[in-house]
Amino acid sequence: MKKKIAVVLVNRANYARMKPVMHALQQEPDVDMQTICAGSMLLDRYGCARNVVEADGFPVESEVYLQLEGSVPITMVKSIGLAVIEFASEFSRMKPDFVLMIGDRYEAMAAAIAAAYQNICLIHLQGGEISGSIDESTRHAITKLAHYHFPATKRAAEYIVAMGEDPATVFPLGCPTSDVVLAASNDLPQDVLGRLGVGTSIDFSKPYLLVLFHPVTTDIGHQEEQMEAVLETVRRLNLQTVLLWPNIDAGSDLVSQAIRRFRENHHEFPLHAYKNLPPDIYIPLLNHAACCIGNSSSFVRETSFLGTPVVLVGSRQDGREWSQSVIRVEPLQPEIESATRSQLAHGRYPTSHLYGEPGVAARIAEQVSKLTPYAQKQLHYVKRPSA
Amino acid sequence: MKKKIAVVLVNRANYARMKPVMHALQQEPDVDMQTICAGSMLLDRYGCARNVVEADGFPVESEVYLQLEGSVPITMVKSIGLAVIEFASEFSRMKPDFVLMIGDRYEAMAAAIAAAYQNICLIHLQGGEISGSIDESTRHAITKLAHYHFPATKRAAEYIVAMGEDPATVFPLGCPTSDVVLAASNDLPQDVLGRLGVGTSIDFSKPYLLVLFHPVTTDIGHQEEQMEAVLETVRRLNLQTVLLWPNIDAGSDLVSQAIRRFRENHHEFPLHAYKNLPPDIYIPLLNHAACCIGNSSSFVRETSFLGTPVVLVGSRQDGREWSQSVIRVEPLQPEIESATRSQLAHGRYPTSHLYGEPGVAARIAEQVSKLTPYAQKQLHYVKRPSA
Amino acid sequence: MKKKIAVVLVNRANYARMKPVMHALQQEPDVDMQTICAGSMLLDRYGCARNVVEADGFPVESEVYLQLEGSVPITMVKSIGLAVIEFASEFSRMKPDFVLMIGDRYEAMAAAIAAAYQNICLIHLQGGEISGSIDESTRHAITKLAHYHFPATKRAAEYIVAMGEDPATVFPLGCPTSDVVLAASNDLPQDVLGRLGVGTSIDFSKPYLLVLFHPVTTDIGHQEEQMEAVLETVRRLNLQTVLLWPNIDAGSDLVSQAIRRFRENHHEFPLHAYKNLPPDIYIPLLNHAACCIGNSSSFVRETSFLGTPVVLVGSRQDGREWSQSVIRVEPLQPEIESATRSQLAHGRYPTSHLYGEPGVAARIAEQVSKLTPYAQKQLHYVKRPSA
Amino acid sequence: MKKKIAVVLVNRANYARMKPVMHALQQEPDVDMQTICAGSMLLDRYGCARNVVEADGFPVESEVYLQLEGSVPITMVKSIGLAVIEFASEFSRMKPDFVLMIGDRYEAMAAAIAAAYQNICLIHLQGGEISGSIDESTRHAITKLAHYHFPATKRAAEYIVAMGEDPATVFPLGCPTSDVVLAASNDLPQDVLGRLGVGTSIDFSKPYLLVLFHPVTTDIGHQEEQMEAVLETVRRLNLQTVLLWPNIDAGSDLVSQAIRRFRENHHEFPLHAYKNLPPDIYIPLLNHAACCIGNSSSFVRETSFLGTPVVLVGSRQDGREWSQSVIRVEPLQPEIESATRSQLAHGRYPTSHLYGEPGVAARIAEQVSKLTPYAQKQLHYVKRPSA
Repeated sequence: MKKKIAVVLVNRANYARMKPVMHALQQEPDVDMQTICAGSMLLDRYGCARNVVEADGFPVESEVYLQLEGSVPITMVKSIGLAVIEFASEFSRMKPDFVLMIGDRYEAMAAAIAAAYQNICLIHLQGGEISGSIDESTRHAITKLAHYHFPATKRAAEYIVAMGEDPATVFPLGCPTSDVVLAASNDLPQDVLGRLGVGTSIDFSKPYLLVLFHPVTTDIGHQEEQMEAVLETVRRLNLQTVLLWPNIDAGSDLVSQAIRRFRENHHEFPLHAYKNLPPDIYIPLLNHAACCIGNSSSFVRETSFLGTPVVLVGSRQDGREWSQSVIRVEPLQPEIESATRSQLAHGRYPTSHLYGEPGVAARIAEQVSKLTPYAQKQLHYVKRPSA
Repeated sequence: MKKKIAVVLVNRANYARMKPVMHALQQEPDVDMQTICAGSMLLDRYGCARNVVEADGFPVESEVYLQLEGSVPITMVKSIGLAVIEFASEFSRMKPDFVLMIGDRYEAMAAAIAAAYQNICLIHLQGGEISGSIDESTRHAITKLAHYHFPATKRAAEYIVAMGEDPATVFPLGCPTSDVVLAASNDLPQDVLGRLGVGTSIDFSKPYLLVLFHPVTTDIGHQEEQMEAVLETVRRLNLQTVLLWPNIDAGSDLVSQAIRRFRENHHEFPLHAYKNLPPDIYIPLLNHAACCIGNSSSFVRETSFLGTPVVLVGSRQDGREWSQSVIRVEPLQPEIESATRSQLAHGRYPTSHLYGEPGVAARIAEQVSKLTPYAQKQLHYVKRPSA
Repeated sequence: MKKKIAVVLVNRANYARMKPVMHALQQEPDVDMQTICAGSMLLDRYGCARNVVEADGFPVESEVYLQLEGSVPITMVKSIGLAVIEFASEFSRMKPDFVLMIGDRYEAMAAAIAAAYQNICLIHLQGGEISGSIDESTRHAITKLAHYHFPATKRAAEYIVAMGEDPATVFPLGCPTSDVVLAASNDLPQDVLGRLGVGTSIDFSKPYLLVLFHPVTTDIGHQEEQMEAVLETVRRLNLQTVLLWPNIDAGSDLVSQAIRRFRENHHEFPLHAYKNLPPDIYIPLLNHAACCIGNSSSFVRETSFLGTPVVLVGSRQDGREWSQSVIRVEPLQPEIESATRSQLAHGRYPTSHLYGEPGVAARIAEQVSKLTPYAQKQLHYVKRPSA
Repeated sequence: MKKKIAVVLVNRANYARMKPVMHALQQEPDVDMQTICAGSMLLDRYGCARNVVEADGFPVESEVYLQLEGSVPITMVKSIGLAVIEFASEFSRMKPDFVLMIGDRYEAMAAAIAAAYQNICLIHLQGGEISGSIDESTRHAITKLAHYHFPATKRAAEYIVAMGEDPATVFPLGCPTSDVVLAASNDLPQDVLGRLGVGTSIDFSKPYLLVLFHPVTTDIGHQEEQMEAVLETVRRLNLQTVLLWPNIDAGSDLVSQAIRRFRENHHEFPLHAYKNLPPDIYIPLLNHAACCIGNSSSFVRETSFLGTPVVLVGSRQDGREWSQSVIRVEPLQPEIESATRSQLAHGRYPTSHLYGEPGVAARIAEQVSKLTPYAQKQLHYVKRPSA
């Protein structure tokens, strides 16, 4: 009997990191992989990443629409409720032995509940990290529902065990991002980049900034002015800029509004905006950027391999581990500008292996294929030597 | 400005423990308490405990129906989803500064998500304990979403801190059950007991058994034969028996079926069944029982103060702390019978203070009234000395 | 290409009437039938009719749990909402060309919305009838969403056309109940009846009453005393009685409570209660009854063929067409008793063909197999000659 | 006791027509009005019309988020399901004697179900009309759930009665639009129009086209090319153009995409786009347009008073009554262009009273204030003289 493993994808960043693991799982003879695309993976205004998944060779067996319009906290909560209902149906129909998911999104929380309460064994990637936003609580709550853990760093593994997970269920094999980065061509697909997105055309032979700023859900109300601070910096530096739209969290409407206003008021400014880019385009874009500004987790993770300078704006990644290529600033215009100028002056950094050596995806897939499903968890507590 | 504290009650056991805390909170001048009755608190077939709450002097400001009929895992999951949607509305409307809840039920999980994602500060009672069933994972996942913790025992507090909660947010003030037990009259209200419930009338001046057996959700399929093993034991001992119907979890239909069949087939057997009893009746009933048989958490907690002998059947409370009054057996008829005979021969045990000294509720209410709400959590990790 | 027809079954009465049509559809070479069991079809406490469906040779392709516990109006409404969400998923997954449903239940309303808004052609059986309760509005609202209509009587067809439906889409081929009745053996399966249900054993060689009383949803609050009036009548007549539990509508808890109290207080009374009976048992039971008391639609429909005397209690079937075998009374004890005594004195009535001649199911199936699906409806209005 | 009337508003068009009735109801001494803003009334990307409602002097007592992101049929259906759940809560909490709503939107359908199943008396404006799209079925299904009817035209009233509604519950007092139109200043607020929206600035002293094209839900898949045909016509006529974004139905993403592409490709074209305009701005804009192109119901209704020439594109309003100012064309570019040229050549038409004489809102409010709530409906069928 093959093991049925349902992979839950909830947004483009999710998929970028899961893709090499999925390719490796496809090679495992004992694994029958099922792909579920949920949430913004299905939405046109986020680039319908679901189509990329199919184009990459993963048939999508289930589509789960779950986001309630509104981008306020109550719609986010209700989206979780609806998502629990929908994932419950899909898991019940697909009857996987395992559910495999990544990270700390509210959509993932819903899938974790749907799996755990139907006694389906849950495998969680990238637990044990520390960050800001509600994602911080979500990530650890998922850890407490999950049956197996594949943290990205040694520190994360240590935290997961401290939280009472049995060390025998924790596999700190690194972050598949290293494989994503290595798999991506180093060459910028300029023709594709020119065809996609909207706005001024960018000359990729010259330096450009890369901006990606997500709303921080525990900081409702300031997202618009924070995005304005980022955009005002871009305007003052007067460097051509590639911008990605934020994710779908509470507050994203405010961030988007700031972007739209900037675009209306600065028609002439050399800014090109993308909704969603597949990893094979996004990685070289990240690699070749003169500096990244924002709070995307890719600015902490992928850049640690790539060495691209990063200005990390605000608290969203606080607690995460990062390499020396990152300067963390408050979401205030002068600070952002000063750090960006400093990074532009410094230029690229050397590669770091903080998030694992290449080959992570294959190691994860091999280990996953050996796992035995189980349902009943219990807190594993090792009395500390002295405390 | 008074602090608005919304108390979430999801079943009769919840309320029994929360009641003394609610009485104490009502006395706090700076606290404005709001009562939410959810789930089986509202259902006739669970005795509509909501009416007891109002009769006890707590106006019910919100009713949340959330259970989907079916008692299979998928309906339990979908009930969580629906509950998240409903609690979201209620919290948004009532705008509490804090949500106060107890325990490890799936309904509580839904309320925890609705609170945490709306940036409402969550206070959790009785985290950090260990048990079987999906409740085990739920309890710890709620801990990772909660902002303040009031564990019942010292060991539970230690576990919560180990899980990465800031010790400054953890208050191990004991279990309010001790207050419940002390507040309850020692006298059995025989006339009330005679009027309520169905079945043969019990002579409370003579020894009786007390049976309460809940389904174990991670053990779907065996609940019916396990309940049969309990009932067959009762039949063989031929002692008059007071039985409480199980809670509403997946599998409860199977347990109920075994009970109904027993009642039909043994019309003459001296068995009286109650759906739901208020604490002031339940506690003396527990206190005067010759022996308790089943897996209710009250058989671990309340009985530790009372000293009533207990035969704990199956894995549902495994991991919990209990005093010497408890004998744990597998859900097999001969084991249950032999342990019950041994407990009947032994008789009552001395009082234990494992779950706290009396006065817990007042201490909890006082501490709660001093809390400051906050939204952003972060894993608190103290490097272990040597490990 | 075969036509895919999804049959939606929402309760035992639904299935009883749909069964002969489903058997006939199974014979149609161009039809690929899909069976959806929803609502109380899946619930143990309503006898899990879903198992009967499979035993009858119809594989169940979809199970839709949809009832929220509570039996108050708000839980009924929320059940509709949840049912719309769930049927949407199932129709989207199964991609039927047609959805085929019967009647006027709120569950059917939800399925009708899910079909119509997904541009699936809706076939509706038994529209155009008149009754009390919210079912009256529901039935006609479904008619306005449905694309093809198979009313049971000529009057019903006339009403549907008057409501603006194109006469070309209306097929008054009668009620499949006639086939149900004819297909059922005339012999009472006494051994099966003895094994099922609970209560005193009935001597089926002697006269018995058959009681089935559903709550009227627009008359919340009086259901309990109405059921009491029925039961008090039964007690006074002192005839052995077969009782069926009511359906799941708002108010059913009150009706059930009256029944349970009667059973507790009159242990000795010769009453046997069934949750759910398959048609091949129910029909002979109906046929051999000395008199039927209550408000089941089967007391209007099936009995018109069978000639069993009926005392129709209260407004639930008001507006429906019935034959001379029915006496309609208010839900007051003296009226019920007097009408029952009169029916017992009268005895059986001759067969009526008000609801169609035998062979209806085959004629419906043949016509269904010829239908062409379409999406866009438009009010069809024939100016009246003189108005 | 004042009558509590809950007014349900689900989009900007709804509100435009309801506003004069709401003003008149506010004057009624026996009426206590409650305002519920739902769906796109709350969404930033539809201009958050809810704020306009409050600014107009109607406190919003309830906000109902209900739209699931996706704009495909399944998300529309699931939005209905969610909306039923949410309206159920709100009606249960607000306990209105009446729910007052307008039209034929799916959000209105959800509110109608939530009201009818909770035995709340439903008042429906603008039933009995005929159109294309799923709105056609929805409108009539709402009629069958509604207890009182205020159709806009005599023909609509006749249809409602034919559908089996009691004539005593039908009040054909006209469409409040006539009052909206009269209340609106005849002067174009050019400064406001200049500040709002995005795109080229319009010279309102010169002729302009007004474009508003909604997706037709029963015609999924062709919306994009239909919108392109409209935009290509605009481009060929080379007249300055005011465009309004479409509503939120399934297919709106496709329509929006065509608009965005046009804007990106024709930066220079004199086009100004608005998300949402309050009636006091929209009406003069409609009044002063050289020609309206699209399928908004305002192009049939408001324009009949105003006399603005209209090119009605596609089937969305088919069946509705319109005056001579409307030319109906297929959604093909040459037809649209030829009809628009012909309308531009013709110029304005005289006022029509097809949709009622001014004073409608006051007459409706007065009648509403006299209504008595009731729950149980029954089909009212008057046998036709000869048929």
